[in-house]
Amino acid sequence: MSKQQTQNHAWLLASRPTGEPTKENFRFVEQVIPELNEGEVLLRTVYLSLDPYMRGRMDDGESYAPPAELDKPMVGGTVCQVAASKHADYQQGDWVLGQSGWQQYAVSDGSDLVKLGNDLPHPSWALGILGMPGFTAYMGLMNIGQPKEGETLVVAAATGPVGATVGQLGKMKGCRVVGVAGGEEKCRYAIETLGFDACVDHHSSDFAGQLAAACSAGIDIYYENVGGKVFDAVFPLLNTAARVPVCGLVSGYSSRDLPDGPDRTPMIMAAILKRRIRVQGFIIFQDYGDRYPEFLSAMKPLIEDKKIHYREHVIEGLENAPQAFIDMLNGKNFGKTVIKVPE
Amino acid sequence: MSKQQTQNHAWLLASRPTGEPTKENFRFVEQVIPELNEGEVLLRTVYLSLDPYMRGRMDDGESYAPPAELDKPMVGGTVCQVAASKHADYQQGDWVLGQSGWQQYAVSDGSDLVKLGNDLPHPSWALGILGMPGFTAYMGLMNIGQPKEGETLVVAAATGPVGATVGQLGKMKGCRVVGVAGGEEKCRYAIETLGFDACVDHHSSDFAGQLAAACSAGIDIYYENVGGKVFDAVFPLLNTAARVPVCGLVSGYSSRDLPDGPDRTPMIMAAILKRRIRVQGFIIFQDYGDRYPEFLSAMKPLIEDKKIHYREHVIEGLENAPQAFIDMLNGKNFGKTVIKVPE
Repeated sequence: MSKQQTQNHAWLLASRPTGEPTKENFRFVEQVIPELNEGEVLLRTVYLSLDPYMRGRMDDGESYAPPAELDKPMVGGTVCQVAASKHADYQQGDWVLGQSGWQQYAVSDGSDLVKLGNDLPHPSWALGILGMPGFTAYMGLMNIGQPKEGETLVVAAATGPVGATVGQLGKMKGCRVVGVAGGEEKCRYAIETLGFDACVDHHSSDFAGQLAAACSAGIDIYYENVGGKVFDAVFPLLNTAARVPVCGLVSGYSSRDLPDGPDRTPMIMAAILKRRIRVQGFIIFQDYGDRYPEFLSAMKPLIEDKKIHYREHVIEGLENAPQAFIDMLNGKNFGKTVIKVPE
Repeated sequence: MSKQQTQNHAWLLASRPTGEPTKENFRFVEQVIPELNEGEVLLRTVYLSLDPYMRGRMDDGESYAPPAELDKPMVGGTVCQVAASKHADYQQGDWVLGQSGWQQYAVSDGSDLVKLGNDLPHPSWALGILGMPGFTAYMGLMNIGQPKEGETLVVAAATGPVGATVGQLGKMKGCRVVGVAGGEEKCRYAIETLGFDACVDHHSSDFAGQLAAACSAGIDIYYENVGGKVFDAVFPLLNTAARVPVCGLVSGYSSRDLPDGPDRTPMIMAAILKRRIRVQGFIIFQDYGDRYPEFLSAMKPLIEDKKIHYREHVIEGLENAPQAFIDMLNGKNFGKTVIKVPE
């Protein structure tokens, strides 16, 4: 191990947010990297993924995964190169997908690593279109959404890695695809580059009316990844036998209190009954982990043939991770947010 | 046609209820039966089915079926005998399942009839365990609920035709079955006769606590047919990957206003996501109409072998239909409510 690899930089989770996270919830530290034991590898983070689900991990409450630990490096998916190895399966320079979190270096016994091969044109895509977000888009749409020719599909965060993939796959299935995005530039991109039929700006004062106008035949599939006012505008438009895969609710992740009444729960349950709606939450690797190879073999040719567009929002420097994360939660990213970590 | 068959008695829908229906929403009339045309049959109602869904049909709002018409006989499924026939396919005396509603006689062109054969031991069962309620129980549980050995299944209205069937089928699939019913007698019946593992009285002041105690391993399937406070008590107990088939919400059918806040919608959607819950409404004949033969061939042997218990609550006399209907909505029935209509 060369000298410069004895020091690690990491963002620890310093405190749990109440409401919107702030930079003060994270603490940047320098740490000594321990000596490798036999069977271990030292990973150098090349790309760190920033994803909305991380907001939930910062909380201590009910979730599908244990909360991130205080005073430990913040959790997150990474694309790494092996910087040093005492593990028989890994050589220095190997590219791997890891879960090493918001830090420059990490030690792993290999059990949490996936080899990426060493000839990837875009290693960071393993965090996006070929990784968790793409897999989420694909399985939720195909398995729960079950798109059919001529149906209307609505997806929010339309230029994000999940929304953009959902919409483009929906177009391939013959759906009318209506996106929801924040701002004119993103909406134009969804239509002109991603090929959506329409895209409605959720900043617009008449958002619900514009969504209804764009969905004149109602909505057959609502791929739910934001919740909040988009859900409220979508729900009355859902058709009989509509499907609502729920993969995220980013608009509510930082909400501390429930909104004022009345309690719409009975109305929503009644609509689910009368319109025979299927609402189903899923967590991609828990529900569909065994189908990752199926996803990859479907998605890879679509990317190679340029039938799917994929956009990244790359930010240089690990020191910028907290602000980039906060910005992403507020929709200031344009595409999949990744932090590029210099050597 | 003999002389006494020239006069029909019928309950018309006189007005739409606001809140709980009353007897004043119905009007009993005597009508002249028109002469049969070629291709028509005269049906004599032998059994009229009373079902919770009828409450929804009395309203004018959104529903899965057009509202019952004012000043027309109230809608409903019936088991009839053919009283006279000018239709080549039907003979006087034939037993049929019809949709002739709350009346003594009705004329049909045969398009809405299902022949029941003339050697049925219990013709009225075509309105219950072998008809819509049994089919609803079977498909909702098997297709959406997907019961597995060792799982906990909760069903309300446990001694009603849907709940009793769901629970008994769940036992056959190896589930721990917990019923919810109104009163000690019904709870005892659910355990002692239907074989449920437990049954909680929803009249009890500590209902939610008792349900939680009876479901110490959480709830994997909640077969939703009542809504309201049962839903509220069940929801926090739902396990990861729980399934909630929604076939009815009888507790809310007569509610005029939404309950006070806060609005729990974001909390419920968050739980659906984090616990990966599937909530799915269904309307039996719209969703599964083509699978009725499959249901019959599964259910008939279970009944013949007495593996499924079925209980009817038979009330004599068409004149008693409105009160019996109101009583059923308030849980005063014990088993499937049918009106026996004398000749």
